[in-house]
Amino acid sequence: MPEREACVIGLDYGTDSVRALIVRAADGAEIATDVFYYPRWKQGLYCDAAANRFRQHPLDYVEGLEAVIRGALDRAPAGTAARVRGISVDTTGSTPCAIDRQGSPLALKPEFANNPNAMFVLWKDHTAIREAGEINTLAKSWGGIDYTRYEGGVYSSEWFWSKILHVLREDEEVREAAFSWAEQCDWIPALLTGMSDPRTWKRSRCAAGHKAMWHESWGGLPAEEFLVRLDPLLTGLRARLYRDTFTGDRAAGVLSPAWAQRLGLADGVVVGVGAFDAHFGAVGAGIQPHMLVKVMGTSTCDMITTPLTGGEEHLVAGICGQVDGSILPGQLGLEAGQSGFGDIYAWFKELLLWPMEHLGETLVPGEAAERQRRIEEAAEALIPALSEAAAALPIEESGVLAVDWMNGRRTPDANQALKGAIAGLNLGSDAPRVFRALVEATAFGARAIVDRFIAEGVDIRGVIGIGGVAKKSPFIMQIMADVLNMPIRVAAAEQACALGSAMAAAAAAGLHPDLGSAQKAMGSGFETVYTPDAGNAEKYRVLYSRYLKICRFIEEEFTE
Amino acid sequence: MPEREACVIGLDYGTDSVRALIVRAADGAEIATDVFYYPRWKQGLYCDAAANRFRQHPLDYVEGLEAVIRGALDRAPAGTAARVRGISVDTTGSTPCAIDRQGSPLALKPEFANNPNAMFVLWKDHTAIREAGEINTLAKSWGGIDYTRYEGGVYSSEWFWSKILHVLREDEEVREAAFSWAEQCDWIPALLTGMSDPRTWKRSRCAAGHKAMWHESWGGLPAEEFLVRLDPLLTGLRARLYRDTFTGDRAAGVLSPAWAQRLGLADGVVVGVGAFDAHFGAVGAGIQPHMLVKVMGTSTCDMITTPLTGGEEHLVAGICGQVDGSILPGQLGLEAGQSGFGDIYAWFKELLLWPMEHLGETLVPGEAAERQRRIEEAAEALIPALSEAAAALPIEESGVLAVDWMNGRRTPDANQALKGAIAGLNLGSDAPRVFRALVEATAFGARAIVDRFIAEGVDIRGVIGIGGVAKKSPFIMQIMADVLNMPIRVAAAEQACALGSAMAAAAAAGLHPDLGSAQKAMGSGFETVYTPDAGNAEKYRVLYSRYLKICRFIEEEFTE
Repeated sequence: MPEREACVIGLDYGTDSVRALIVRAADGAEIATDVFYYPRWKQGLYCDAAANRFRQHPLDYVEGLEAVIRGALDRAPAGTAARVRGISVDTTGSTPCAIDRQGSPLALKPEFANNPNAMFVLWKDHTAIREAGEINTLAKSWGGIDYTRYEGGVYSSEWFWSKILHVLREDEEVREAAFSWAEQCDWIPALLTGMSDPRTWKRSRCAAGHKAMWHESWGGLPAEEFLVRLDPLLTGLRARLYRDTFTGDRAAGVLSPAWAQRLGLADGVVVGVGAFDAHFGAVGAGIQPHMLVKVMGTSTCDMITTPLTGGEEHLVAGICGQVDGSILPGQLGLEAGQSGFGDIYAWFKELLLWPMEHLGETLVPGEAAERQRRIEEAAEALIPALSEAAAALPIEESGVLAVDWMNGRRTPDANQALKGAIAGLNLGSDAPRVFRALVEATAFGARAIVDRFIAEGVDIRGVIGIGGVAKKSPFIMQIMADVLNMPIRVAAAEQACALGSAMAAAAAAGLHPDLGSAQKAMGSGFETVYTPDAGNAEKYRVLYSRYLKICRFIEEEFTE
Repeated sequence: MPEREACVIGLDYGTDSVRALIVRAADGAEIATDVFYYPRWKQGLYCDAAANRFRQHPLDYVEGLEAVIRGALDRAPAGTAARVRGISVDTTGSTPCAIDRQGSPLALKPEFANNPNAMFVLWKDHTAIREAGEINTLAKSWGGIDYTRYEGGVYSSEWFWSKILHVLREDEEVREAAFSWAEQCDWIPALLTGMSDPRTWKRSRCAAGHKAMWHESWGGLPAEEFLVRLDPLLTGLRARLYRDTFTGDRAAGVLSPAWAQRLGLADGVVVGVGAFDAHFGAVGAGIQPHMLVKVMGTSTCDMITTPLTGGEEHLVAGICGQVDGSILPGQLGLEAGQSGFGDIYAWFKELLLWPMEHLGETLVPGEAAERQRRIEEAAEALIPALSEAAAALPIEESGVLAVDWMNGRRTPDANQALKGAIAGLNLGSDAPRVFRALVEATAFGARAIVDRFIAEGVDIRGVIGIGGVAKKSPFIMQIMADVLNMPIRVAAAEQACALGSAMAAAAAAGLHPDLGSAQKAMGSGFETVYTPDAGNAEKYRVLYSRYLKICRFIEEEFTE
């Protein structure tokens, strides 16, 4: 047991915001929290949704880092800062960025300050579809190791190498200036510890193993020969990246004096090795072997851990990877996910807001600021209102049936070129009916993943939901339970990712002997269980088979 | 030539409103016009869009009749009323209603005043899908004449017998009280002439021939034996309907003294035989042999006339019928159409208005009436705003591709159970992109009809557009021209249907020797030509083949 008042900070970098959570290391009791929304991102800068280009400026992260730690400390009892022993960080991913020899993202240089190619390429950016295709073709055909084998056998345009290659090809200036590349979850710890040479950073096992084709059995990253055959532009990059990777219970270093001062923390605070948000989220939510943890936010990340067999691992086809220690040290971490989830509801919301946004002056009289405020207030109320109306509709009543590939498909069998659809429309298909179909489609997408795990022999003994949608929408969660025909428990932690990050910080700082002990001591259990209704489950079984038919058609006949 | 100042009235009953047009019989010069929106319909009474049930109360028609004729006369120069020599009427169809022994719609009786089954079953009502299926099955299998042969070989749920049978089965009270049935276009002339026994009415050739399986060669309506085999509930109805039918240039009778007084018209005004709005519209727009007239409103009606061959007619498969004299006396009138057209844009508009309508109080402060006014104003501006934004998008840019079957498919090969779809959606598919795809889908649906005519050997030598969409949306019309790859002329007549109706009234009243002469003397030519762009046409040729692929999938795998 750690000293009674020792504290740790879990930092959670999501898609839209960063959050800091200060907890007591002994029992996980929350001391204070704060959140910061990325200002450039919120304005839509550097992005082009129609082209699926999503970039984030490193200053959004840096400003957020200082704001949320200072903000949380301000809200905490006096003396808290001095009791902080560790900080760990999770981020979205794969979210890589070109960095210079000192490990600094290129967009922090004045000459690259407005160049989206010098920024972090956000997980959901799909500009690298062509490059992913080339990686897949080469991996299957070059005669050497298939480096995609522990990543589900299909490399995605959302991942590290696809994005690097795409940017190197597209942008000569970035190509010239880039010394190496970093995942966001590796860069933030490096920044906090003041480590400059990126070759010395302690890189995250989960980022490397799930997204960068890193595996111990072939000595780390894919061979230089493979990378050069993929494109000579990659020549030499492997040596400027990394050989070894580390699990999230390990220390990356200690807080640099400069950052200790900037954040108002003591010297010697341990900074843990980073990880992806979903992975620390699974830890925070209480993941155990054969338990599916589903992080339901803008997209989903679906994770299962299974005991390591010691021998040759059974390869699970079409998922996003299986990596020793990526979630819990000593367990095999399996990852899958849906490319679009809350993002699909948000898309529909944006669609419906078009008239308000474009006819605002006709609609709301008076001052622009007041108009904007009213439109935002109505926008805020929209998804709850749609959910309420949609919940009142009987299943199947409308006949509307959608496919949830508006952001491509991550699992099973990654294919980001796929697109979404809405079928079964008639003149009575109003907004709640279409919304309900979209919610059902996201649940069908979830079921396709569960079905794949089961078909591949991975037993699922329970489902835990975390993330904004799990917390906020009983309507969506009940449909999910009915479609999966499994009970779903919702983790009680308000911020499971930040809590998991704090657990990792406690382990890295030696306040608990290992991550499993930290998880047990600091976890906060479950708040709700959604139990499937047998009648609904049967109706959804039928609808799901129609959903799969449309999916097959889109995949066979309608892929770009 | 008629006396210089003789006038005629064309009455045009559309889906939402009725219009009267008073013109000079000599040259078609407009004297005055007025319009009346059906008040019960506007409130959505007796309808259930989600179930595709659309009914109209006869009082909406009667109140409108008086309002628009009185209204137009009020706007006309003094003395006009005394110069009116004829009135003809067109209506939507097939829009039948159960009537009593005196020819009065049942809904006019107090005990049926609120019963939708005692009202007119509007053309776009699709409650009779099952009955249409039974008619088709029996027609092909009973061993006698295939009564669908001059109606394209597929009987529709939108048509006379399907609707009658559906209501008779569903509503015992209506069944007991119904003596006979009448199309709206037969009832309005009967009402105006005061003819009570429905067996004596002069029924419209176009309604009977296109929708009721009437044909001279088998002695009128289908044989009693066929109808009784379809359902014994139909026993005896044939004899209470009609044997003979009449073209639109014939007189149904003269205005009854009661109605002459009620409308402020002279005794002896001729009332013409009624017709469907599209047919008189084609006449008003200047239809000639081998000219396709496309009435583009909530749905479309596509008409071609060809010279009668004298011998056995070639049967055109999958259209809505081919009837001697249905459009122009002495010509074969061929009819096709799209079940949903403007209705599809209106559906999308309604979808987008949901937030305004449901979050209005959050959005627009102040009084309910003022709020309502502002929302209506914004709603009015929505389709023009979407069109402007959509027009700026390059073809194919978004990848969104829709199928226009939100109201089923009328032609080719009627199937009202089909539904619409929107495919190729990604997170950047905003409202203008989806709207553009819907517009393109309606143009693809138009092309499928043209292709069918051509495949069946019906030469198309030109296209004329009429109706609200043709007049109001250069954006939609240009896409239509590009997709059809044919120039489209837009008729100059502001109200082609009402003008055609007035031409018919002039012929029926003997002011011109025949309808062709009236058409020549009273027509008003063309106002615009949309010329296809060769590059766009080629792009659309490719997209059209993808559209057909989705259509095939929906038809094969996804029909209820």
